Amino acid sequence: MSIHKRITKKSEDYSEWYLDVVEAADLAENSSVRGCMIIKPWGYAIWENIQKHLDAMIKATGHINAYFPIFIPKSFFDKEAEHVEGFAKESAVVSYHRLKFNPTSRKLEVDPEAKLEEELLIRPTSETIIYDSYSRWIKSYRDLPLLINQWANVVRWELRTRPFLRTAEFLWQEGHTAHATMEEADQHAIKMLNVYKTLIEEFLAIATIPGKKSESEKFAGAHTTYTLEAMMQDGKALQACTSHHLGDNFAKAFNIQFQDKDGKLKYVWQTSWGLSTRIIGALIMVHSDDNGLVLPPKIAPLQVVIVPIWKNDSEQTLVLNKAEEIYQMLSRTDITTKIDIRDYLTIGEKFFEWEKKGVPIRIEVGPKDVQAGHTVVVRRDTLEKSHVKFEDIRNAIPATLNSIQQNLFEKSRQFLYSNIHEVHSYEELKDVVENRNGFALALWDGEEASEAKVKEETKATIRCIPFDMQSNITGNCVISGKPAKYRAIFAKSY
Amino acid sequence: MSIHKRITKKSEDYSEWYLDVVEAADLAENSSVRGCMIIKPWGYAIWENIQKHLDAMIKATGHINAYFPIFIPKSFFDKEAEHVEGFAKESAVVSYHRLKFNPTSRKLEVDPEAKLEEELLIRPTSETIIYDSYSRWIKSYRDLPLLINQWANVVRWELRTRPFLRTAEFLWQEGHTAHATMEEADQHAIKMLNVYKTLIEEFLAIATIPGKKSESEKFAGAHTTYTLEAMMQDGKALQACTSHHLGDNFAKAFNIQFQDKDGKLKYVWQTSWGLSTRIIGALIMVHSDDNGLVLPPKIAPLQVVIVPIWKNDSEQTLVLNKAEEIYQMLSRTDITTKIDIRDYLTIGEKFFEWEKKGVPIRIEVGPKDVQAGHTVVVRRDTLEKSHVKFEDIRNAIPATLNSIQQNLFEKSRQFLYSNIHEVHSYEELKDVVENRNGFALALWDGEEASEAKVKEETKATIRCIPFDMQSNITGNCVISGKPAKYRAIFAKSY
Repeated sequence: MSIHKRITKKSEDYSEWYLDVVEAADLAENSSVRGCMIIKPWGYAIWENIQKHLDAMIKATGHINAYFPIFIPKSFFDKEAEHVEGFAKESAVVSYHRLKFNPTSRKLEVDPEAKLEEELLIRPTSETIIYDSYSRWIKSYRDLPLLINQWANVVRWELRTRPFLRTAEFLWQEGHTAHATMEEADQHAIKMLNVYKTLIEEFLAIATIPGKKSESEKFAGAHTTYTLEAMMQDGKALQACTSHHLGDNFAKAFNIQFQDKDGKLKYVWQTSWGLSTRIIGALIMVHSDDNGLVLPPKIAPLQVVIVPIWKNDSEQTLVLNKAEEIYQMLSRTDITTKIDIRDYLTIGEKFFEWEKKGVPIRIEVGPKDVQAGHTVVVRRDTLEKSHVKFEDIRNAIPATLNSIQQNLFEKSRQFLYSNIHEVHSYEELKDVVENRNGFALALWDGEEASEAKVKEETKATIRCIPFDMQSNITGNCVISGKPAKYRAIFAKSY
Repeated sequence: MSIHKRITKKSEDYSEWYLDVVEAADLAENSSVRGCMIIKPWGYAIWENIQKHLDAMIKATGHINAYFPIFIPKSFFDKEAEHVEGFAKESAVVSYHRLKFNPTSRKLEVDPEAKLEEELLIRPTSETIIYDSYSRWIKSYRDLPLLINQWANVVRWELRTRPFLRTAEFLWQEGHTAHATMEEADQHAIKMLNVYKTLIEEFLAIATIPGKKSESEKFAGAHTTYTLEAMMQDGKALQACTSHHLGDNFAKAFNIQFQDKDGKLKYVWQTSWGLSTRIIGALIMVHSDDNGLVLPPKIAPLQVVIVPIWKNDSEQTLVLNKAEEIYQMLSRTDITTKIDIRDYLTIGEKFFEWEKKGVPIRIEVGPKDVQAGHTVVVRRDTLEKSHVKFEDIRNAIPATLNSIQQNLFEKSRQFLYSNIHEVHSYEELKDVVENRNGFALALWDGEEASEAKVKEETKATIRCIPFDMQSNITGNCVISGKPAKYRAIFAKSY
């Protein structure tokens, strides 16, 4: 896009604003393949930072990485009936393994002789192909728990796509574990939800509500699905990740048994859990503003940009030397920094570009600043400018980065909690999800019929049954009037 | 496999030996999908170490990572005629995007209504899909050089597969760059070959011969292909990686033009270069022995294993305390280490397992050792045992790891150079590649006919025209008798 293209205001059209920010920050773009995006370097660097931190946390909790085939034989999906219903339908199907060159048309054609005996699906998720292996690998209680994680691309054919939020191909990690007991599997699923919560709060600065999915919203084939639900600035929910306690559903479908200490053959209990490039969509929507992307420092590909300002050669020498000095000083710490020395952009264009890209701190170094012994420091979250003396930079920059990180999380947390409305009637519930753009916390009878009614009439779904809000359930379901079993969060979602 | 399964001796059957080592070290196994392997945790950890070092080197040379779609529209392959011929034929073809559930058979079937208008190929390599983007991204000389790298999975349908060496799906990185001049592109292709050489020599401890591919062996669509050729212990060659100077072939096919400083519209010059999980096959075949895998310390997932030896409780306390002390000492350095405390394996089984897995150093701690104030240190490369006093461990272990790393590289280098035979006749050439299991260095007229004759009669091909062996070309081609243009290396290969 042109460097001067205006970003649609959030208040005008939230959906257009999102697309404009993705484009303005150069995060991703549509490819020539329907529904597939290209993750551009700035967007991919954010994913690499997420990977780096999450991979370390996954390893610190005892998991090891492995890699399983991208292809899944069609018959594998016949094994787990519920899984089949929920998944595997909108999948990319490989039927041929060769093209041939047609010398007349000078084009490639599918070679009918190279038809596969059994179609292969490109993994929409890897439970089936991984558990096929687990059925061979697991023999004894000594092989448990088996704690494996995979970083991979997956494909789900989607009709309506949006960069990061919903694309035919996306990147993720998927953890797959097997345990000796149901309790251990359940605890493990919750442990991994907490790992995600730490990543998402401490690095991505996004507040979330942890809870359980309802039966109709859980992962097909799971016993229980746990989730972290985040709130976007338009009040809609975004499922940041899920962690499933799979029960023994797949163990029975794939015959994964172990000899226990008591000598008996038993089915394993399993978990699976994933976090995808979709989280970058949440990152954009939670923090950004009408000037473009806003990034938490801990996840930003670049934390500080130094913009030297000069008009003539002597000024140039002066400010570049000072910029270099600051660069060297910051580089000795863990801070990622660069000097923008491009001579074919105006100062305004440079400011504009780094602002759009969400770099947390901009340091301006002009000739008058050098003479005055200070720099102008601009923080991206509040756009506040301040003068910082050269001798204070070493301490001020880390402190400001820290302050930005805290401020973004605090804003996210306050926005989330101030937009959760406890409702006491169905009319109130509808008002919250339809007019007040928030989460409605309501007493619910636990029945699918009540849930379905809300979905049909308002498009809101149960995002989760929050762990922390279940004490003293007394009263009736706001939908059916029957005695309530849970407090549930209803909201529209991405 | 059973823990006691014997590894076939290298001298009996090299090919079986390779498969046995892969299995014994638990690196990978075949999956239920024909031609696709599962990279098991120990094998994947090696790949992660390769990735870590290579990614840092790729970034240090100015490249940034990005991610492009796994799917390539079939028509993209029609654009570059030579590329079509060489590639894209044995590819996985996606023709449908949905399965439907047949309630009668209770099975999934391809939904005929979900046929794609244009078939999609799963990338066998990404030149076409990436350069489609480059044609939009590159406008001015200021956008050059464009230096992008991608870590990805790719699929090439192979009839005969072997773990790591040749699999339908494999993992790799592929670098794709665009430059303003032909010279710059050529220099960049060589620069990246040197980056690979550093990785492969310094981390994987494998000696290679850098050189240029012949016309018939180069990458389809490249102007020049550079390669590093390694020698396996059976004397066969393995192409460790390639770096292509693509000329302006793809630039013209995909219309990638830029406005140069002189205001003129010009085509860019490009490079692409890749290194894949295949290198793990080389790593196995270059260093390993009849006891299993041998790993260079810099790439080993675990560098030191501490095996405590005890018979009764008081011995157990004694040796475990000492083992823990050593563990803590080594962990404070960069050395990766663990204590093998499993109580259901014999000491012999533990030794056997870690030996098969190629852990560079084993430290044995028995009660007598503790009393004598030393440990037994066994290095995996030579199987030499030595007593090391406790107070010397801190220095001895890093020194021994360093010695193993150097020794493995030196062995690889000596084996390579002692098995390159300069030949002066066609008979000698045949003798070297057929009976002496080595590389034949021969004068060659540069003609495809001569090359084809060798291939037909001996199955050996030109592995490369080595950079360093081209001075004073006088004399005739050993095949045709015509005046020679090059010295070329002929060998059988993987």
